[in-house]
Amino acid sequence: MGEIVFVGLGLHDDMGISLRGLVEVRSADTVFVELYTSLMPGFSLERFEKTSGRRVNVVSRADLEERDAQVIVKAAEKHKAVLLVPGDPLIATTHVSLRIQAEKRGIKTRIVHGASVLSAVIGLSGLHNYKFGKSVTIPFPDETPSETPYSVIWQNKEFGLHTLCLLDMKAENRRFLNVHDALKELLRVEAQRKKMTVTEETLVIGVARAGSSDATVRAGFIRDVLGYDFGGPPYSLIFPGELHFMEAEALTVLAGAPEGLGTVSR
Amino acid sequence: MGEIVFVGLGLHDDMGISLRGLVEVRSADTVFVELYTSLMPGFSLERFEKTSGRRVNVVSRADLEERDAQVIVKAAEKHKAVLLVPGDPLIATTHVSLRIQAEKRGIKTRIVHGASVLSAVIGLSGLHNYKFGKSVTIPFPDETPSETPYSVIWQNKEFGLHTLCLLDMKAENRRFLNVHDALKELLRVEAQRKKMTVTEETLVIGVARAGSSDATVRAGFIRDVLGYDFGGPPYSLIFPGELHFMEAEALTVLAGAPEGLGTVSR
Repeated sequence: MGEIVFVGLGLHDDMGISLRGLVEVRSADTVFVELYTSLMPGFSLERFEKTSGRRVNVVSRADLEERDAQVIVKAAEKHKAVLLVPGDPLIATTHVSLRIQAEKRGIKTRIVHGASVLSAVIGLSGLHNYKFGKSVTIPFPDETPSETPYSVIWQNKEFGLHTLCLLDMKAENRRFLNVHDALKELLRVEAQRKKMTVTEETLVIGVARAGSSDATVRAGFIRDVLGYDFGGPPYSLIFPGELHFMEAEALTVLAGAPEGLGTVSR
Repeated sequence: MGEIVFVGLGLHDDMGISLRGLVEVRSADTVFVELYTSLMPGFSLERFEKTSGRRVNVVSRADLEERDAQVIVKAAEKHKAVLLVPGDPLIATTHVSLRIQAEKRGIKTRIVHGASVLSAVIGLSGLHNYKFGKSVTIPFPDETPSETPYSVIWQNKEFGLHTLCLLDMKAENRRFLNVHDALKELLRVEAQRKKMTVTEETLVIGVARAGSSDATVRAGFIRDVLGYDFGGPPYSLIFPGELHFMEAEALTVLAGAPEGLGTVSR
């Protein structure tokens, strides 16, 4: 039997892959890439093929989800297939589903990890990782109202915890929820729920293009962040809970937050 | 003024660094590495120096924490310094502290991300990332009893959420809390708190050497996992909350959990 090696591309472009990932690509019989579960703004397939010396087959959402990844499973039945994916593999449920399906057929699977937006955004913010609660995706408001994200932010704050919010995207259509529209939607929910969780005076951190050399991190009150120009996608938001004094200092020095943010000693 | 570029080494060995990270190392005036905030079992300094073509200066915990990273700050005052760190940079508070200190002196800082144990362990488990609550480190029981980790696991379970527990380590002394001892300590706390949170019948997932080619993932009831041989460090644990049916299937197919785990439809 063959195997599928899931290789993380890391963030932003074709330079985010690890040395180990590149070795796996070079020794594969067939190389696939999917570029729809997350946005890699600087990724060039042509350049990656040149760096790796291998031809790479692009698989679509339909290939993976409707056609049950048959093209990959077939390639992996007797040989070694590599599937390149944005970020860290197996964070997207689509990949977990493919992995289960392959293992059930006796095809071995392995993972070569890559940088994930989850830890990247936390690192960029300067906040303490162990103070984050459940994370959530803010969907496009015209598709799904943000009742659930609002509740997650509220619930985390009740425990003093930070909330990481990924903003929805349709990478294949180049459609991205931006910071302004996400905040406006949460303010709309606030107007109904009135829990004082997301108001114009709430501290928020916006992050754009995590992992790129021009990543932007901006902390401030929502009334100010609403008008801030973050540049191109993708985007994330963090709603801080209680701040340790070092976290408050990080937001001021590294992300332009106002001085004198309230802190707690834990 | 110069700059400090924090470059993530990713996981396990000297092949976890990204291509972008390697480019930064090659163009640096001075290269430092710290290897104490996490364990890189397969990291060879000699091999990394050969791959990168650069001499690398090892900085100790004392260099970074007691001597305020003066050696790095001094090198970055006029030139480009790279600090290599295990995993994804700026997840450790020591690095955030150095970053704040540098920026306050007018030294620019940048981050090149690497794979983090946080997303790696979640991906290896097959569980859904957005169902994890607050994470926690389980300390050495002879130093600190695990009252806090127990409470975090209990609180997350109350909301149906999973808990990621990193097991403590002193990488510089090669001392590691193993899965068996961590579980025993939590069972000890259970005997006092009696919330039925960590019993011999509780489902748990143990992970060893995330990011290496022989990463081990084992799911089962604590009574069985207690006797399982995970091999070498480092170690993590996950305490699942409510399981989606695809998560239950992942634990059975990918991690040896018993069939028929109870699931919920959300």
